[in-house]
Amino acid sequence: MNILVTGASGFAGSHLIEALKAKGHTNIYGTAFGNAAFLSILIPESTIITLNLTDSETVNKMISTIQPDWIFHLASFAFVGQSFERGAELLQNNIVVQHTMLEAVRKHAPKARLLVVGSAEEYGLSEQWETPISESHPLRPVNPYAVSKVAQDLLAYSYAVSLKMNIVRVRPFNHIGERQTPDFAIPAFAKQIVAIERKQQDSLFVGNLNGIRDFTDVKDMMHAYITVMEKGVVGEVYNIGTGVGVKMKDIVDKLVAMSTAQVTMVQDEKRFRPLDIPEIVADAAKVKDLGWNPEISLDDTLKRVLAYWRTL
Amino acid sequence: MNILVTGASGFAGSHLIEALKAKGHTNIYGTAFGNAAFLSILIPESTIITLNLTDSETVNKMISTIQPDWIFHLASFAFVGQSFERGAELLQNNIVVQHTMLEAVRKHAPKARLLVVGSAEEYGLSEQWETPISESHPLRPVNPYAVSKVAQDLLAYSYAVSLKMNIVRVRPFNHIGERQTPDFAIPAFAKQIVAIERKQQDSLFVGNLNGIRDFTDVKDMMHAYITVMEKGVVGEVYNIGTGVGVKMKDIVDKLVAMSTAQVTMVQDEKRFRPLDIPEIVADAAKVKDLGWNPEISLDDTLKRVLAYWRTL
Repeated sequence: MNILVTGASGFAGSHLIEALKAKGHTNIYGTAFGNAAFLSILIPESTIITLNLTDSETVNKMISTIQPDWIFHLASFAFVGQSFERGAELLQNNIVVQHTMLEAVRKHAPKARLLVVGSAEEYGLSEQWETPISESHPLRPVNPYAVSKVAQDLLAYSYAVSLKMNIVRVRPFNHIGERQTPDFAIPAFAKQIVAIERKQQDSLFVGNLNGIRDFTDVKDMMHAYITVMEKGVVGEVYNIGTGVGVKMKDIVDKLVAMSTAQVTMVQDEKRFRPLDIPEIVADAAKVKDLGWNPEISLDDTLKRVLAYWRTL
Repeated sequence: MNILVTGASGFAGSHLIEALKAKGHTNIYGTAFGNAAFLSILIPESTIITLNLTDSETVNKMISTIQPDWIFHLASFAFVGQSFERGAELLQNNIVVQHTMLEAVRKHAPKARLLVVGSAEEYGLSEQWETPISESHPLRPVNPYAVSKVAQDLLAYSYAVSLKMNIVRVRPFNHIGERQTPDFAIPAFAKQIVAIERKQQDSLFVGNLNGIRDFTDVKDMMHAYITVMEKGVVGEVYNIGTGVGVKMKDIVDKLVAMSTAQVTMVQDEKRFRPLDIPEIVADAAKVKDLGWNPEISLDDTLKRVLAYWRTL
């Protein structure tokens, strides 16, 4: 069986390849946009494809050559924090990347099974009584990144229902682990705490810590993707999260407690989003019905994240 | 008051300008992409702007110069029937056109009121028990055009809720009238019937006529847009339709009955969509609460459409 992972050099992609290898899969191809040096630790050079996924000719050729049975389509721009500033890039890239892949599969590997990655960001504005958020929660995205994920998700849906393509979809909630860029909150905290331990920085700069989020370890998240690929119903979408909400403040307190450094917190206006959703917690009953459950505790994940930043 | 209508040389746009003039509005600016010859019958040459609305520099300059109080943002590609074949164009153009306008208004006319045009196509797959379709119906678009309208609609939503911009949104159901291109079903029927009257064609080629749709006269539709612009609640979305479903077969029968020609119908596979929704009827209670009601009967509209095609 041939497996293709797009965005393989990214945060989730690299963990997915590790998970696939651990499950005994071979013939794993990975795409990278920029630097693929890290990827060559995971898969042979001959299976690394460096390309621009918005270029349909190249994508067509790749799909037609590899003839993948499974495609995990993870590649996307994910500047969530700069969503409005970089909206044009986000929208164009993410939507074209999705459309190009759907057309390439349709034409050159019509039986391939394609996993498409949306986001909890698609749900956006949510009232207290709508929590936890199930797959039928209305889509009320509050920034261009979230809109680009809605478009990716629903474009895949339209190909599944109209053209009967073999597509499954996921909507991951927050996921964390080593190798995540500090554009996201948790790695940003960990990186700063390590800088404080090294006396390179005085205070920990934080944004709004009142939000409640649902954090899944990236390794558990990738097992969920594989579960959906193996057992998900064609055309359907699956929320992925633990179902447990944690206050951002508690996460920061945990990270600080794991450090030997004395940490002073400073609120930084620049780290506030134009509109922050108070609570985003998954109703993940649907994916749990497929047999998936998160296995790694939040404390273990946070320890690993901190340890990762100490190695850099 | 300065009013800007994008897509002014199109089907809806030209009717909107007529409606605005009839209500006594002056200072109406209209944009055209291609041929603006027709537009100069409606508004002075000096208020016609020929431009590419995906070019942000030009759009910024236009908004900053005109300083519109109202913007009716109608411009979009609408190849619904060729949605899959021309998906790349549709998605890119429609999403960029929306994002560019939102950014131009944000930067250069932040107080302007912007009307954004979605589509009943956004709802897509609908079960019998979900009819009539209210604004809270899930978005299940079944083709790339529909996805491009979801993205336009929700992008505007995100700017309204996150950046507090003065935006209202509409989701028009089917609308018909003179000047609509024969890419749509009703003008395609009318055009063919006139060709049969002129002995230029033998049979009337039709697609699936079992679908039930909600047809509003384009003139009534444009009055609804103006009503929403005048009285709609910021950030909200309004379905626009009559609330009455009519079988496509009945429309064809009405058109045929209005003709003197003997018409034989032939089913044409090429006119079938990959997936056709059985029934699409609006729950338009929300816009009716603003005081709008359709005033023109379906028979009167169909007579006008047929008369229009006889003049060509």
